[in-house]
Amino acid sequence: MSDRFSFSIAATDGAARTGTIAMQRGEIRTPAFMPVGTAATVKAMKPADVRATGADIILGNTYHLMLRPGAERVAKLGGLHDFMGWDRPILTDSGGFQVMSLSELAKMSEEGVSFKSHLDGSKHMLTPERSMEIQRLLGSDIVMAFDECTPFPATRDQAAASMDRSMRWAKRSREGFDAGGEHASRAALFGIQQGSMDETLRQRSSDALREIGFDGYAVGGLAVGEGQEEMFRVLDFAVPMLPDEAPHYLMGVGKPDDLVGAVARGIDMFDCVLPTRSGRTGQAFTADGPINIKNARFGEDTGPLDPECGCPVCGQWSRAYLHHLIRSGEILGAMLMTEHNLFFYQSLMAGMRDAIATGTFAAFAADFSTRYRKPRTEG
Amino acid sequence: MSDRFSFSIAATDGAARTGTIAMQRGEIRTPAFMPVGTAATVKAMKPADVRATGADIILGNTYHLMLRPGAERVAKLGGLHDFMGWDRPILTDSGGFQVMSLSELAKMSEEGVSFKSHLDGSKHMLTPERSMEIQRLLGSDIVMAFDECTPFPATRDQAAASMDRSMRWAKRSREGFDAGGEHASRAALFGIQQGSMDETLRQRSSDALREIGFDGYAVGGLAVGEGQEEMFRVLDFAVPMLPDEAPHYLMGVGKPDDLVGAVARGIDMFDCVLPTRSGRTGQAFTADGPINIKNARFGEDTGPLDPECGCPVCGQWSRAYLHHLIRSGEILGAMLMTEHNLFFYQSLMAGMRDAIATGTFAAFAADFSTRYRKPRTEG
Repeated sequence: MSDRFSFSIAATDGAARTGTIAMQRGEIRTPAFMPVGTAATVKAMKPADVRATGADIILGNTYHLMLRPGAERVAKLGGLHDFMGWDRPILTDSGGFQVMSLSELAKMSEEGVSFKSHLDGSKHMLTPERSMEIQRLLGSDIVMAFDECTPFPATRDQAAASMDRSMRWAKRSREGFDAGGEHASRAALFGIQQGSMDETLRQRSSDALREIGFDGYAVGGLAVGEGQEEMFRVLDFAVPMLPDEAPHYLMGVGKPDDLVGAVARGIDMFDCVLPTRSGRTGQAFTADGPINIKNARFGEDTGPLDPECGCPVCGQWSRAYLHHLIRSGEILGAMLMTEHNLFFYQSLMAGMRDAIATGTFAAFAADFSTRYRKPRTEG
Repeated sequence: MSDRFSFSIAATDGAARTGTIAMQRGEIRTPAFMPVGTAATVKAMKPADVRATGADIILGNTYHLMLRPGAERVAKLGGLHDFMGWDRPILTDSGGFQVMSLSELAKMSEEGVSFKSHLDGSKHMLTPERSMEIQRLLGSDIVMAFDECTPFPATRDQAAASMDRSMRWAKRSREGFDAGGEHASRAALFGIQQGSMDETLRQRSSDALREIGFDGYAVGGLAVGEGQEEMFRVLDFAVPMLPDEAPHYLMGVGKPDDLVGAVARGIDMFDCVLPTRSGRTGQAFTADGPINIKNARFGEDTGPLDPECGCPVCGQWSRAYLHHLIRSGEILGAMLMTEHNLFFYQSLMAGMRDAIATGTFAAFAADFSTRYRKPRTEG
């Protein structure tokens, strides 16, 4: 049992922390960025190439996987790790967020959410208990409690009611997870703080989660349209409410400068589709900020996407070639842009970990921010 | 000059031959299959992975590349090899076939073909001289003469007129290529036999090509809807008309059993989009024949695509996973299916080369054919 889950903080620098989560399937260096593998694949990437970007853990989506190929089928095929060929830790979300944003006719009650599949119209029900069962069938390493991501904006009453229900669901999630037998003995369960942008609600949510007890704590309900400034304002009070000794996970975030600002506020884990999704449409992240490779000025640019990048893509191919591939709708364009972007994200995380370890995080963050946002004459 | 182009036949077995084409950018083991890299990419594959399947040479399409990114741009960027990151030989077609099948408002005259781009409606002209210039700008290693792929079916008069014009264009191609300076001193030029399904026309075409003189000779105008039996009937008389000592290239072919039958008739080189294109839509080639991975029966099949295949895909992933990826429209599905299919094709070529070298080609072909076509209860 001792090797089920542990989190050790090696160094802190202000509110920022760097350390290691140890689990049976491997270690996760924090602060960590988790590439999103929605449908049992990090889109356009082989697992070995995802690993080569520096990823220690990936995320799988319960909503997508329960509908296709189906949790029971994945279990029958040996679990998500064997199925997709990724042998390191996988965190699965609870399905709560996506069932509300992607399904049809979603109806929420105290029991859970009934909905129709966006793929074939079939009827389904997600409850805390079913979400725990699905994540167990998938063989998830880090299971997320089933909650409602409170819509934004929300009145205080709406936010309070939503948060209170999520806390009741958190307790049911804990019980469902603990009833999972062998899986519960090797996986971890994270709770999710809600409360919208309200400090007292965030406190009430944190108190409820602490009372239940989890291996890690996520900050939910952010990156929902409130903007970076407001997100940072909420993190300033929300993160200190969480247990210091547990990992802090900011869900669905974010842009590179979001990550730096959130690490500065004590966040240890992130996931976001941005590097993968935007790569497929031609956005590349660089130390000088994002560029759109479809821009005509890259058509004869023989330089790499990012002159300072050490990734295999920047080592071999030019902006001109990537411009051509993306403009031509070629799959290889999606593959190479995704690989570069994931490498950029992982390099940023590694840079932050090193800076925290050496007590230079503030300077790192300032340098990054100045350069990443510097005025450019080109778009 | 001695290392510009040479073809040595190491062994023959009946009409089948195995040997090596040596060029400055590398050796090509024959019989050879060339994956198609239409728009400066073998779709869904990194160049290193294409090489790892066993490919010694790939094909690029003049028609696509002249329109996007443009031959002059590719030249400015250092040529097709540097642009796409493939340092081994590249054969480029002349654009003659695709301008007739893909462009809009194509008008043929003795001078060449005027047309509008299918991408943006821009006006262009392809002539033997311009085709040679484009292939030189791309930096092609094996340049194809500009010809007309005679439509099928054709009357004898149509076939004769078309072939005769192609032979006049072949002479202009030879002159255009030879005027190419440094490029002509390191690249090779292949002529293309036409004549539809008619033996006397094929002979007249071969005589004309021999008179001009080329490094290699292609059989054009087949795989245009005539069927395998008719194609083999034409190959039976068409291939012996070509110079024995030069490579024989069957353009645009084909299915695995087409390749075996054509090698038996003296063909040394092939290209076809089948393994790449059909991979993207879910067809996998196996020793027991093709399967459609989307078929419901593969949904829980934990076996590899082909139990006897040694490719990285069959070593790691199940039919069930590939079924899921292709059904979900995931890019990784296209990547893995393409990789397997190219590996299958290259393994077939390697098997044929070995069989010819050991004088067992007839048995190899019979075994392959029996098994590949064996009756199956499933589709």
